[in-house]
Amino acid sequence: MAAQIIDGKAIAADVRKEVAADVKALQASHGLTPGLAVVLVGEDPASKVYVKNKAAQTVEVGMQSFEYKLPETTSEHEILTLVERLNASPEVHGILVQLPLPKHVNAEKVLNSIHPDKDVDGFHPTNVGRLWIGERALVPCTPTGSAILAKRAAPDLKGMNAVVIGRSNIVGKPMAALLLRESCTVTIAHSQTKDLPGVVREADLVIAAVGRPEMVKADWIKPGAIVIDVGINRVPSENGKTKLVGDVAYAECAEVAGAITPVPGGVGPMTIACLLQNTVVAAKIQKGIKD
Amino acid sequence: MAAQIIDGKAIAADVRKEVAADVKALQASHGLTPGLAVVLVGEDPASKVYVKNKAAQTVEVGMQSFEYKLPETTSEHEILTLVERLNASPEVHGILVQLPLPKHVNAEKVLNSIHPDKDVDGFHPTNVGRLWIGERALVPCTPTGSAILAKRAAPDLKGMNAVVIGRSNIVGKPMAALLLRESCTVTIAHSQTKDLPGVVREADLVIAAVGRPEMVKADWIKPGAIVIDVGINRVPSENGKTKLVGDVAYAECAEVAGAITPVPGGVGPMTIACLLQNTVVAAKIQKGIKD
Repeated sequence: MAAQIIDGKAIAADVRKEVAADVKALQASHGLTPGLAVVLVGEDPASKVYVKNKAAQTVEVGMQSFEYKLPETTSEHEILTLVERLNASPEVHGILVQLPLPKHVNAEKVLNSIHPDKDVDGFHPTNVGRLWIGERALVPCTPTGSAILAKRAAPDLKGMNAVVIGRSNIVGKPMAALLLRESCTVTIAHSQTKDLPGVVREADLVIAAVGRPEMVKADWIKPGAIVIDVGINRVPSENGKTKLVGDVAYAECAEVAGAITPVPGGVGPMTIACLLQNTVVAAKIQKGIKD
Repeated sequence: MAAQIIDGKAIAADVRKEVAADVKALQASHGLTPGLAVVLVGEDPASKVYVKNKAAQTVEVGMQSFEYKLPETTSEHEILTLVERLNASPEVHGILVQLPLPKHVNAEKVLNSIHPDKDVDGFHPTNVGRLWIGERALVPCTPTGSAILAKRAAPDLKGMNAVVIGRSNIVGKPMAALLLRESCTVTIAHSQTKDLPGVVREADLVIAAVGRPEMVKADWIKPGAIVIDVGINRVPSENGKTKLVGDVAYAECAEVAGAITPVPGGVGPMTIACLLQNTVVAAKIQKGIKD
């Protein structure tokens, strides 16, 4: 039996609709229009596309978009000064500094200089701590989107065995925190895990976030499991060009899984949608508005 | 075959010796004597004993001890003012506010008012975040002590299947972070876990931190596994009095495990030792001294 395909593109559109409704409601109730500032330093082509998409979608849901495109030669001090200004600006509720930053800039220092309540990437230690403690937090976008996709396949994740493959700060660890909050039994597996296929085979819910093309095979998957594929890997394709594949061998796993996300069109589109959602949450936190 | 008994009392004494040596070294190299301030509000008898022990052991390892015993009627504002003063004091490197606080005081607010670099309990969101991200952090004492005990039984935990039973902010979650740092495959189990015995049976390392007397039975334990028992439960004893037992059915599990901590005399004595260790780490962080 073929798995239900979890349509990230359609679900991301749903999330953006919800965000647009939230923005309208905030304007009506508090005269508040959330604003997102994106800082891009240098000329990385992928970053430029990504920033352009973010700005377009920000405007589309009715929020204010502020773009700061700085030359590659911008000093760390200048970037920190800009972040300080955005931290103080009442119109800006979310600040995103696009990575990678040029080599002469200390990225950790820049990211930690963003006020935690405006840190829509959710990377600041204060937000990481709040997430784990269970306080109101800004949570990284990719795991948030992944959790939304999993809950579309099974609205109640409580008691599920969830296996997160990968322990990055950006995906694996916050993913574990979110699934624990949903009362899954959570296992964090990684490169040092012994018998990874055996560990994954116990999972009702698999989140693959390792960056290894098609590593997860069909015989790792428990029949009926939900499979969320965070990986986006560019590999050579049959026609001599390249194509995108996930961390999961999609075609064969779709034969075994109960529900599965494709790549592209799964987790990918959710990330910007969750960034917009975070900007609304950030605006509410700053104005002391309850969820 | 009976398990190796992990002697928390002896290992805690070792840790205190190391701390005393660290203190001497800091005095010699930087003229710095770490200081720990403990704030006790009210007359809770268990808290009074605990605070007295902390102060005695602080002095014993050569550090400065500052005790603040305030009446039950002390206002939240007065406590916050004291914490503010301790935050600013150059002699105080660690601040511990003994819980529970009186009901008219917002404990979360008080704990979050402690400067993260002086937060030797490791409960502040900033420290929780730093721990998970992998930055230098002050880590809660009980999981730190538990990890030390586990490493006495097996110096290299890498690749072990570790199951943490319990997902509290004080033990379960930081325990998971520490074991992930040791490159264990980490599973966090809890009250919603299905087939908990089956999950625990896969573990090379079990950490029980649920507060349910002797819940973990011998047939849950993989032969040879390391069992760390964080529970301290007072139960009726045969002679009509009470006794302390852990979350693990010690006698029967000791027949199956490879190594096991007793209760009392296991994790318990480690907690204050790790608090003293944290005070040294806090002093180093504040003075910019590398580990």
